[in-house]
Amino acid sequence: MPTAPAPFTADDYQARMERAAQAAADAGLAGVLIAPGPDMVWLTGYRPPAETERLTMLVLAAGQEPVLVVPTLEAPDAEKAAGAPALTLRDWTDGKDPYAVTAPLLDVDGRFGVSDNTWALHLLGIQGQLPGTTYTPLTACLPMLRGVKDAHELERLAAAGAAADATYEEIKKVRFAGRRELEVAGDLADLLRQFGHEQVDFTVVGSGPNGANPHHEAGERVIEHGDMIVLDFGGLMHGYGSDTSRTVHVGEPTDEERKVHDIVRQAQEAGCAAVRPGIACQEVDRAARAVIDEAGYGEYFIHRTGHGIGVTTHEPPYMIEGEEQPLVPGMCFSVEPGIYLPGRFGVRIEDIVTVTQDGGRRLNATDRELAVVE
Amino acid sequence: MPTAPAPFTADDYQARMERAAQAAADAGLAGVLIAPGPDMVWLTGYRPPAETERLTMLVLAAGQEPVLVVPTLEAPDAEKAAGAPALTLRDWTDGKDPYAVTAPLLDVDGRFGVSDNTWALHLLGIQGQLPGTTYTPLTACLPMLRGVKDAHELERLAAAGAAADATYEEIKKVRFAGRRELEVAGDLADLLRQFGHEQVDFTVVGSGPNGANPHHEAGERVIEHGDMIVLDFGGLMHGYGSDTSRTVHVGEPTDEERKVHDIVRQAQEAGCAAVRPGIACQEVDRAARAVIDEAGYGEYFIHRTGHGIGVTTHEPPYMIEGEEQPLVPGMCFSVEPGIYLPGRFGVRIEDIVTVTQDGGRRLNATDRELAVVE
Repeated sequence: MPTAPAPFTADDYQARMERAAQAAADAGLAGVLIAPGPDMVWLTGYRPPAETERLTMLVLAAGQEPVLVVPTLEAPDAEKAAGAPALTLRDWTDGKDPYAVTAPLLDVDGRFGVSDNTWALHLLGIQGQLPGTTYTPLTACLPMLRGVKDAHELERLAAAGAAADATYEEIKKVRFAGRRELEVAGDLADLLRQFGHEQVDFTVVGSGPNGANPHHEAGERVIEHGDMIVLDFGGLMHGYGSDTSRTVHVGEPTDEERKVHDIVRQAQEAGCAAVRPGIACQEVDRAARAVIDEAGYGEYFIHRTGHGIGVTTHEPPYMIEGEEQPLVPGMCFSVEPGIYLPGRFGVRIEDIVTVTQDGGRRLNATDRELAVVE
Repeated sequence: MPTAPAPFTADDYQARMERAAQAAADAGLAGVLIAPGPDMVWLTGYRPPAETERLTMLVLAAGQEPVLVVPTLEAPDAEKAAGAPALTLRDWTDGKDPYAVTAPLLDVDGRFGVSDNTWALHLLGIQGQLPGTTYTPLTACLPMLRGVKDAHELERLAAAGAAADATYEEIKKVRFAGRRELEVAGDLADLLRQFGHEQVDFTVVGSGPNGANPHHEAGERVIEHGDMIVLDFGGLMHGYGSDTSRTVHVGEPTDEERKVHDIVRQAQEAGCAAVRPGIACQEVDRAARAVIDEAGYGEYFIHRTGHGIGVTTHEPPYMIEGEEQPLVPGMCFSVEPGIYLPGRFGVRIEDIVTVTQDGGRRLNATDRELAVVE
């Protein structure tokens, strides 16, 4: 296995926090409030032991020292975060009002960006202290805050993609027929870990009619000869995500199955080929969708074409009709069209793609033809 | 292992949803909005495949059919939930505005309760559609919605407690000295699963100075002869929680260690003895805290005395100064005082207690004296 990348330093986190505060000011915001979750991990390296009713909140504003409000109980954990030297901890003890501790850090009539996944409990708690403040979700006001990856992040995403590819090469060799989907899903999880993932987020095994539900995970169904099977798996490696899909077939496919698979493969090619700096995200969706529409299967492609990936496996930018955000070099996202024939089978093919100076580069490289498995 | 309890039925979930809608009306609310998480599991039996940026939201209001707004992708999963027959599904497809689907279900100038863990993204999205609505966290407006457990819930909590007790009896037999905390934590997780838990939420092994951080989980520290060790573990069994702590000692304790442990044991006894219907939650905290205060260690008891438990391992009611909620038969919560001597060691003893008609009943029954381990 390749050596692990060098950990991010307090300087890295300081730079990210400054960039976020400046982006907020540029967007006319008084600052941003960051809850535990991917935004906090990206900005500080800190992941609290659990997301609970106890307030943990990072406050960033241009020209102001970053402050992390934490429960006293969790202060020793927060102090160990790689980004801790670049911020001030302000702790509060059970029985005290954590919102009263946070309020003095905020402009009393400011408009703030707030992490999408901030608990309503906490947002309403702060609003209760400062009725003059207003809020907007971070993905609405600063959607691209984490969207453009730097070289160190791309290195991690490429490593995660390579591990997912190695997983696909191995899973093609296992027995499918006669085993439950959950068993194959277990194999996928084991392989992802074996190839270096510290966290497995999903291992979809959608066999036969289950493949026609694009969010089916894996269940008790016993895989049969003649099944089409959607495999969609990913997780985190060195803190960055993988997410790839291939569709395989147990035994020889029918002509119709080959045809549908080929349409999806061409749609996925078209989506990837559309990627280049400056075009809108929706153009990637349109390029993939046009192929499926023209083949007469448009009504069976029932989801967007892709989503960003980074410290999470789902984040902006989204490749979806109506998304006019232009692509920028360093963005990373999935291109994953599919066709889902209810009660029969589904096909999905997915790669992670990063925007380069003059086009796109796939971070997954396994064969996209319909693989025949046993 | 005892047989699994009978699953909850659609009728059970219908009754809970009606009770919640009525409680909301009684509290002067136009209804409640329920996000994925423990409230949704308790009300509908539904747990979406993941909590994401895609809106899933249950809308309850007295005299109105319960409606679950779900992404089209996830509708097949939602339809399988045990409570699905008792509600109407309203799905929305990628690219549509899910808040526009939700808004017509709500009174345009109503005040609503909203699950504490609802994402700010979703709350702000609905507020954007209906600027005349106002919101309050569910634990603020209906804190006891899930607080009083029925007989079937108590049966599950007792089973989870018994499994945690069995885990403690076994862990006392393992070797501690010379092993890393994480190894003992792994043993605890294995035992919880072996005794029937489907989910392990925490396995704290706080040895020596690590025990003085009440939220230390488990780390690389190698346990030594002479260490005091806080063990605090729990998770979910048949969907309901366990959470118990005992403090053990590797080899013979010193007189001071025995003394501090004994103070905590007496404080925990006093907290449990205080439990009876009608007293305020804060009285349980006061009873336990008084023992530690009087012994001169008050400044080292740095957290509340307890928290409720049910479909989560942390929920209302909270045993904390200022909480005037009266105890009601069927409530279940932890009683877990502790003393934490920074840089030296910690002691915590914890049982789950349920309120009976005339007092309290512990759901953990293992010995509370300081156990000597190897």
